[in-house]
Amino acid sequence: MNQKAEKIKIVIVDVDGVLTNGTIIYGNFGDEYRSFSVHDGMGFALLHRTGIKSAIITAKSSRAVSKRAKELKINLVFKNVKNKLLVFKKLLKRLKLKPEEACYIGDDLLDLATIQAAGFSITVPQACKEVKEAAHYITQKNAGAGAVREAIELILKAQSKWPALIKTFES
Amino acid sequence: MNQKAEKIKIVIVDVDGVLTNGTIIYGNFGDEYRSFSVHDGMGFALLHRTGIKSAIITAKSSRAVSKRAKELKINLVFKNVKNKLLVFKKLLKRLKLKPEEACYIGDDLLDLATIQAAGFSITVPQACKEVKEAAHYITQKNAGAGAVREAIELILKAQSKWPALIKTFES
Amino acid sequence: MNQKAEKIKIVIVDVDGVLTNGTIIYGNFGDEYRSFSVHDGMGFALLHRTGIKSAIITAKSSRAVSKRAKELKINLVFKNVKNKLLVFKKLLKRLKLKPEEACYIGDDLLDLATIQAAGFSITVPQACKEVKEAAHYITQKNAGAGAVREAIELILKAQSKWPALIKTFES
Amino acid sequence: MNQKAEKIKIVIVDVDGVLTNGTIIYGNFGDEYRSFSVHDGMGFALLHRTGIKSAIITAKSSRAVSKRAKELKINLVFKNVKNKLLVFKKLLKRLKLKPEEACYIGDDLLDLATIQAAGFSITVPQACKEVKEAAHYITQKNAGAGAVREAIELILKAQSKWPALIKTFES
Repeated sequence: MNQKAEKIKIVIVDVDGVLTNGTIIYGNFGDEYRSFSVHDGMGFALLHRTGIKSAIITAKSSRAVSKRAKELKINLVFKNVKNKLLVFKKLLKRLKLKPEEACYIGDDLLDLATIQAAGFSITVPQACKEVKEAAHYITQKNAGAGAVREAIELILKAQSKWPALIKTFES
Repeated sequence: MNQKAEKIKIVIVDVDGVLTNGTIIYGNFGDEYRSFSVHDGMGFALLHRTGIKSAIITAKSSRAVSKRAKELKINLVFKNVKNKLLVFKKLLKRLKLKPEEACYIGDDLLDLATIQAAGFSITVPQACKEVKEAAHYITQKNAGAGAVREAIELILKAQSKWPALIKTFES
Repeated sequence: MNQKAEKIKIVIVDVDGVLTNGTIIYGNFGDEYRSFSVHDGMGFALLHRTGIKSAIITAKSSRAVSKRAKELKINLVFKNVKNKLLVFKKLLKRLKLKPEEACYIGDDLLDLATIQAAGFSITVPQACKEVKEAAHYITQKNAGAGAVREAIELILKAQSKWPALIKTFES
Repeated sequence: MNQKAEKIKIVIVDVDGVLTNGTIIYGNFGDEYRSFSVHDGMGFALLHRTGIKSAIITAKSSRAVSKRAKELKINLVFKNVKNKLLVFKKLLKRLKLKPEEACYIGDDLLDLATIQAAGFSITVPQACKEVKEAAHYITQKNAGAGAVREAIELILKAQSKWPALIKTFES
């Protein structure tokens, strides 16, 4: 796993069930709400400091996701994606990256092909069985509660970038 | 249980405590909110692909439920239902289905008679005692967190429709 | 405990941490939100059918609570209460009930005196230590997730009213 | 730990992941929501009664936090803080307090330096590893679900102020 993590130059994540706990709150007026983790947010900030890129590929679209992606300074955001693997391949081509340089984090059947294609694939405890069987790593933290932060730390530690980062936070 | 699942041609679900975790969020202005699971949503998409129908029978009414039902392409939605068993019977009659072809998922006393009447009745871990005793199957996943998805997978697997479905998601 | 439950003619509940899980959601515009359990709601419906009364005593005030109380047909609602024991005593006097005919459900220090005064006092797993030590019964279900329903069932069973109620829900 | 708690004259807390469970809910319209615990709220009320001061230092800014801080009568609120340790030191200087008289509660890397500097540093079960290793105490209760209340009780008990407080709530 560490060998896979060492090569990563981009972390690509699904939204619902990965950055959130997989629930969407619906209101009376067509309004929708999603819950995001501040720990995941800090994770992206750390990732970007080391020069690793980030992207979101989601089958849905919502302004909550757009806002969150902007705050987290996610490099690339693909919404309303029918075929995630296709977008994954185009994205790598555009950035001139190889599949083994991409970490993909997904949780359901729409993510399965990309989970199989990514050099380092990660999923969460609540993922569907098929994705859990195909992924290289299952996080201990739950989706929407630090799972992506855990994945990012794992990569930064494998790349020996963690200790220097931590020092910048000490007094 | 598999014998019961094999015959199912429609999956009928309650909303609160089945598609949601049983809580309703209330705001300052009479506004209400309900949380739905994207995993359940994917479950209905899979169900419909195999030609099995779906319906919602709920004692309450809210625009959140209407929106969610529309997105999930639920075939029939009955709101403000006082007597669920009556609606269940009418629904089967209209669709020319027998009780043994209907799976009903409910969690509280208002669901009890329908749980007793359906060919395959399913409930959730947080259901009331009487419903849990009467149901044929209790999901492992919690309501609002994949319980309905689990029920749907169970039916599709019993009907040997699962492997072909999964193949369409692989790379 | 059953002897205490047998005498109950009114169930009086606190709101935050009893009917809810103890969290209040705050929005950008001074808006507040509280989560209520549909299982608790069904509990109050059952309680009222047997002629037992209900009341809410809360130190706070919000339209969410007013709306929920109206839906649940709670007989008496006291908001912005500084001294809960005082209101508890006045309420009993007005209804000509004795303390041993009142069940009180609370979870924090503001409830302590009333927990000590009620004929049958109930609290929840997340209550503060002092209230848990003073209460006659601690529910197994969490607050906002069926704790009040559990309390109501306990009372209706002790009063031998449960079996007849359940029969009305069977097919 | 009790020796550290005895000297505390101010409790300073982070918001996200300490007063909340670390999730922020995003709506369709740029609206944000945070969940706070009424048990924590009661904790601040008890703290202030004994004359101990309180402060919030947060890297973010939201009207939900402002509203909550006002309700809780938090003495000092610092928002949009880039360097928490700097603000922590200025705050102590302004109030003429020594580091050993300050309890700081934080959960992530932005809190690490202040966790190392405070006389009594507390964190929560979901905190990042580095903060958990540096803190003097890890609460049993989760953030957003009574962690700060637990910290406050610990301090008030160490200062022998708890029994007198409790008496005021008894009947």
